[in-house]
Amino acid sequence: MDGSVKGWLVVAGLGPGAEDWVTPEVTAALAAATDVVGYLPYVARVAPRTGLTLHASDNRVELDRAAHALRMVGEGRRVVVVSSGDPGVFAMASAVFEAVETGPAAWRALDVRVLPGITAMLAAAARAGAPLGHDFCAINLSDNLKPWALVERRLRLAVQADFAMAFYNPRSVSRPQGFTRALAVLREECGAAGSPTRPVIFARAVSTPDETIRVVALSDAQPEMADMRTIVIVGSSLTRVIARDGGVPWIYTPRSAPPEVSA
Amino acid sequence: MDGSVKGWLVVAGLGPGAEDWVTPEVTAALAAATDVVGYLPYVARVAPRTGLTLHASDNRVELDRAAHALRMVGEGRRVVVVSSGDPGVFAMASAVFEAVETGPAAWRALDVRVLPGITAMLAAAARAGAPLGHDFCAINLSDNLKPWALVERRLRLAVQADFAMAFYNPRSVSRPQGFTRALAVLREECGAAGSPTRPVIFARAVSTPDETIRVVALSDAQPEMADMRTIVIVGSSLTRVIARDGGVPWIYTPRSAPPEVSA
Repeated sequence: MDGSVKGWLVVAGLGPGAEDWVTPEVTAALAAATDVVGYLPYVARVAPRTGLTLHASDNRVELDRAAHALRMVGEGRRVVVVSSGDPGVFAMASAVFEAVETGPAAWRALDVRVLPGITAMLAAAARAGAPLGHDFCAINLSDNLKPWALVERRLRLAVQADFAMAFYNPRSVSRPQGFTRALAVLREECGAAGSPTRPVIFARAVSTPDETIRVVALSDAQPEMADMRTIVIVGSSLTRVIARDGGVPWIYTPRSAPPEVSA
Repeated sequence: MDGSVKGWLVVAGLGPGAEDWVTPEVTAALAAATDVVGYLPYVARVAPRTGLTLHASDNRVELDRAAHALRMVGEGRRVVVVSSGDPGVFAMASAVFEAVETGPAAWRALDVRVLPGITAMLAAAARAGAPLGHDFCAINLSDNLKPWALVERRLRLAVQADFAMAFYNPRSVSRPQGFTRALAVLREECGAAGSPTRPVIFARAVSTPDETIRVVALSDAQPEMADMRTIVIVGSSLTRVIARDGGVPWIYTPRSAPPEVSA
């Protein structure tokens, strides 16, 4: 390939699944790419065409995948690294920049851009109402890449800060006990009075044919209500439940907090 | 209007500004609407057409605006309430559900849907690299709708939890002192050792012609670096800065945390 050809790397978010949640910016980047790199189920969402090479890889090889993409950019190729949701939230953008930082100095001069997408918690929140309408936090519950003690500490402080919370990767097949412990920590911090009134939303496979939305009180939440395709949202102390005849209730967190909450 | 006509309400996120960040789902909803309701600068982003009535209103009348939209749906109209960014993050979705909860019981039977959008913090994060790549929180720094003591408490607990942080509405003309105090609280919690190394990103008017991205250390951050068009992102203790010759550095928060962080 001609050395004057300028390659680029785009880290793109495909959203949670629905085609009409993919931004036009991402669609245009995919149309201009020579190579698409990513985890197999996300690469499978990109339509094959002449001139486009699809490089699908397995889970947990994020740094290798990022380095592969960066090497191709150095060769003048136009590479899109695809993530589900938003690439900056528990996804490939961090891995790409980690590979840049630890890789050859020349990689810092490459044309690298991140294209935002609809992240899973906002899709889940939209289906339920507006549970993240006031201050909130997002926690990856997997202890694959961090110690469980840090997860637990963040859960306790998040309750004390009265954040609404969104949990990614709540429960894996290999470590199912993590979410059980998370629910126990939340109940302990919220107290016997708070747990029956605090809503928990289990939003599974949002915008796919398998979508389910379930709302229960924290005191009734069970670990098996979540799997790795589920986003779990826990309300703050102010989150409201609007009952509806024969339907899933609407959940929202008000925009305002009364003075006494800060005491 | 025929009583059998079924109206609907869609609360739609237009993203931070760029046309190619508006999802196809939102574009389709606007094409099917009879009425668009919202804050004036957001309604101005919707192209006028025959059969579409634009209802622009001023800031701080969110509940009136929501009630107006719900009344029109009851009359069989197809109404889109527009927000900037994502409608569920410090925007109109919470106001709509608050109006539903406090309004006539019949409103609970209406067809109300929330369509997610690219929220400002994810757009800002994408421009800077991947600063929200690990656990993080989002805080609305305006004390218009909550007491300042609650803002300050959340800031302290967020540092203790070692979250990366995104701040919406950091600094208004009428209450400029809030952000000054927020920076002081963060420096106090991060300590003299932490403040010079912790990056702060000021992302202003992302995806508009006025866009600017500035990265400074927390110890060098000044209140006047932010205004109401700015999203401020503060790294966690693990957030990395990748220096680049002649350019804004890339900022990312690694996907993993070492065991000692939890101590």
